[in-house]
Parts: sequence; structure tokens; C-alpha cells
Amino acid sequence: MSKNFKEILEKVKALPKKTVSVAVAQDSEVLMAVKAAKEQGIANSVLFGDAEKIAEIAAEIGMNIDDYKVVDIKDPIEAAHEAVKYVHDGNADMYMKGLIETKDFLRSVLDKEVGLRSGRPLSHVCVFEMKGYDKLLFLTDVAFVPYPTLEDKVSIIENTVEICRAVGIDCPKVAPLAAVEVVNPKMPETEEAAELTKMNEEGKIQNCIVDGPLSFDLATCPEAAQHKGATGRKIVGDADVVLFPDIHAGNITYKALVHYADVINGNMITGTAAPVILTSRSDSFEVKVNSLALAALVADSLKKNK
Amino acid sequence: MSKNFKEILEKVKALPKKTVSVAVAQDSEVLMAVKAAKEQGIANSVLFGDAEKIAEIAAEIGMNIDDYKVVDIKDPIEAAHEAVKYVHDGNADMYMKGLIETKDFLRSVLDKEVGLRSGRPLSHVCVFEMKGYDKLLFLTDVAFVPYPTLEDKVSIIENTVEICRAVGIDCPKVAPLAAVEVVNPKMPETEEAAELTKMNEEGKIQNCIVDGPLSFDLATCPEAAQHKGATGRKIVGDADVVLFPDIHAGNITYKALVHYADVINGNMITGTAAPVILTSRSDSFEVKVNSLALAALVADSLKKNK
Repeated sequence: MSKNFKEILEKVKALPKKTVSVAVAQDSEVLMAVKAAKEQGIANSVLFGDAEKIAEIAAEIGMNIDDYKVVDIKDPIEAAHEAVKYVHDGNADMYMKGLIETKDFLRSVLDKEVGLRSGRPLSHVCVFEMKGYDKLLFLTDVAFVPYPTLEDKVSIIENTVEICRAVGIDCPKVAPLAAVEVVNPKMPETEEAAELTKMNEEGKIQNCIVDGPLSFDLATCPEAAQHKGATGRKIVGDADVVLFPDIHAGNITYKALVHYADVINGNMITGTAAPVILTSRSDSFEVKVNSLALAALVADSLKKNK
Repeated sequence: MSKNFKEILEKVKALPKKTVSVAVAQDSEVLMAVKAAKEQGIANSVLFGDAEKIAEIAAEIGMNIDDYKVVDIKDPIEAAHEAVKYVHDGNADMYMKGLIETKDFLRSVLDKEVGLRSGRPLSHVCVFEMKGYDKLLFLTDVAFVPYPTLEDKVSIIENTVEICRAVGIDCPKVAPLAAVEVVNPKMPETEEAAELTKMNEEGKIQNCIVDGPLSFDLATCPEAAQHKGATGRKIVGDADVVLFPDIHAGNITYKALVHYADVINGNMITGTAAPVILTSRSDSFEVKVNSLALAALVADSLKKNK
């Protein structure tokens, strides 16, 4: 079980080398991450995009372009189409966004012929290594599904559990969060959290332990859980996954912790046939490299389970 | 303008001494805070409750009970009734919860004859001194109003602005938060944030600058705001107040920051005729004392503006 990104990185280095297919690679920050991924033994990459511009940026950042396969396609939509097809056809293990609009990138992911659909809805997971918490914490969904229905939440849990298992957490503890830890009929989020817990008990959500509704402190702080006397709960400040009621709660909490707690993180899109890395311009270099490492680990796990 | 709780404390000490009326005072944690408030020159207190039990606890925590006015009322509801009336009648400046159910305590606050109604709806404010942020940050509403309507949000802003002004922030910057910083018709929270901004521009919400929707990083991180090129915004990582879309977003973010960021905080109920302190059992001693200091400052400001 990996407890931090250093351990994830070490695990990845010991695996057969993976390959990432990059859509519209002429982006200096993306190329810097791709270069680091190669140097650190995380993954090789194949770069789809404007070969001339890619070569220019490579020269600027001290990247030897001869070490990379470059597929010259000037049009971003076409480049993404070929880049995702490359993964779809089994030539690469994961798919990464470059200098292309998010909606166009996602359209390629969801392409019915050459995309990476798995039949499940997509969701986003953010993996935190956070000072003061002695295990990895998986936050979902802070970026992708705005107002998940109960059914969506089941899919989000299943998607996230798959990522947890790839990281070595075989039976993760999943906490559907709310402002309170008791069911309140005036708060539908608490009722859905209880419903998810029941579905888990009935075997309808598997390979994990679901216990909600939980407040953030009862989910992630053993002292708070003890102080409040949380007897009879399955999660006592030791959640692996926190499931947010909606994107606002998720995104605000995520941003608050990234900026004001001591956090190292990596993110990916889940529910796809192969790992998809969609980092944003505001993500640091470190986040991009961590995301690549996380995706490589997940790619390996997906292959083994095929 | 106070930038931290040390400055708030110093300001309070220089003011005419305030008095807090405590409802059902036989609670060791509350009495410890009350004792510290007296010792630190924050406030005197009058203790309503079971005199025998109060004396017992006082002896245990080394508190000289002769220094305090104690009003012996065994029944909690009656004790709260008399304690709130004491504030209502102008004998004390602020009102604090002791060993009484929250709903019974709030019922006394809202009592039509002896309570502390101001005509405005009540809301909760949490004041953060947070490492990495160079001013106080006011979070609302993380504990009281579950799903504020647009009208509720106006009241919450007005309540909070009053507290900001008491602390010396004459024209606070108020950021209605969301997952994104642009209006999205599929996210009503973003539309309401824009509506609040417009109402502020039209003079319908006064004594503050409202700018939303904003993500948490654009509201509170100057670097993030610059990185994302937030041109034409009135708040650029320098918000005084963050307004949450609902109690789940607010409470989860609040708990996350309290436990994983470096935070000192104080809380109070606003929208009342006198400051009301409703700390919870899980709040630390420090939070209780800070809340008393904050309330004393607000009480002084309310008196001056009468």
C-alpha cells in the first residue's frame, strides 16, 4: 500500500515502462512534465501535435527531442483524435491533455470509435499526501461531476475504489461527507450518504467500506472522532476516500487545502478504459509529474486485471 | 483594523469592560473559558444555572467563585430565559451557551419578549487567523443556515459586514464562492453570486465590495489570482469574507482548514441585538476565549452605533 508519492514513484519505477500519448503536445509545461517523467523512469511518451513547435519548445527546455516519437499533426482536433486512438489501439497506456481546449480533449476521450469509454460515467479523483494525515486521501469529485445523483455517486465510488486498489488499498474506507454526521430529512445529502452506506452493506457497492454521512473531521481526524464519541461507526478519522456532496463543496475544500495545508497531490480522470491525465494550467509541475506517476500505476493495474 | 486575535485581544482590553451572561453555566469547559476571559481582561461574567454544581466545578478548576455573580436556577430552560433577559434588559453585553441543548439555547435567543431578535435572520460567522494569509478571513455560513436563498445571502453578508466593521475593516471585500469563477447557467450558485455582485454595485448591499462567483484560490491567493489572469475583478486573492453556497461546502471547508491548516479562530452568531457565543464541545479552549474576545469587540461596536 503506497502511503505517499515517493512510494508511488518507487513502485512505478519497478514496473514495465509505460507510455503516455500526449494530445497537442506543444505546451512547455506539459513537455517539462513529460521530460521529467522520462528522466525519473515514470513513462515514455509519444507526442501528437505541431512537430515544429514541439521541437522549438523542446530546445528551449533542454529536452532531446530525438528521444521521443513525434507525430506531426497541426490541427488540434485531429491530433487528439490520433493521440487517443493510439491509446485505444493499445500502443500507449495512458492519455494526457496538452494545448487543447478541455471540452475538445474530453470529446476525444468519449469518442465512440477511437476513445476510451468503459461504459461507466467519468469522474475525477485527486490524491492527497497531506501533512498530519498518515495515509493517502482520495478526494472526489472536485472538478468534473457538478451535482452527482445517487447513481452518479455509486459510479464515482466505484471509479475511485479502482484507483485505490491500483495504489494497493484493497478495501478503502469511503466517507460520503456532509455538514453533519447524522441523517437529517431536511438535508438530502445526508439521506443519500446513508443510502450509499446501506447499498454497501447489501453488497451493491463492493470492495470498500462506505460509512456516511460524516463531517470532515470525523472522516479524517481520529482525535475529533474520539472526542465526539463516534461509537458504532466504521470510519473513525481514518477514511481513504472522501466523497463530496457536490462540486462546490469539493472544489472549495480542495483549493483551500492545496493552498493552506501542506499537501502534495496528483489528479486523474477515472472511469475510462485507460488512465486520463487532465491537469490544468494552474497545477504545478510537481502535480503534473505526480499525476503521471499515479496514472502509470493505474495503467499497470488495469492491464493486470484485464 | 485587527489583523489577528492578538490585536483583537489588545483592542478589547483597552475598552470599557464587558459582561457576558452565561446560560446554564455548569460546564467545566465553558467555565474555564469564562475564567480566562476575566483573567485576560476580556469580560466579566454572570453565571445562570445550578449554583451548587457551578461552585463544584469552579473549585475543581481553581476558579474563585466569589468573584462572579451566580444566579441559582436549576431548570436549564428557565436559566436560559433569565440569562438572555439579563442581556435583553441591558445588564450584560453578550450571551453565551453553557450546558444546554443548542435548540433550547437558540429558542431563548429568539424569544419574542426577552430574546435578542434584531429583525434580521441569524447567521454564523467564523473568523480565521490563518498562516499564509495576511489578514483575518471571515467564513460564513459554516454552521447555521443550511441552504441560504438569495435573500438569506444578502442578510448573511449584512450580518458579517457588521462584524468586520467592529473589527475595524470598514469596507470588507466579500467573495461569494463557487467551484468556478464564471457564471454558468447550469450552476445556480454562480448566478446568485453574480446577482449579489450586481446588487452591491446598485447600492442594495452596502459598506462592502462584493465580487463573485469566485473560486477559493482566486478569492484568497494573490498568486493564483495573478496566474489565472483575473483581470477586471475587484477581489484578487484579497477577500475579507468568503460566502459559501451552502452549509455543506462551508462546514467541510471549515473543518478541513481547522484541522489541516495553521488556523486560530473564533466564532459567533450574528444578526442578533447583542453578540451570541455558541461554541461547540469540539471547539478548543482557545476557540472559546477567542470567541469571547471577538464578541466583546462587537458588543462595544454595537453600543457605539446605537
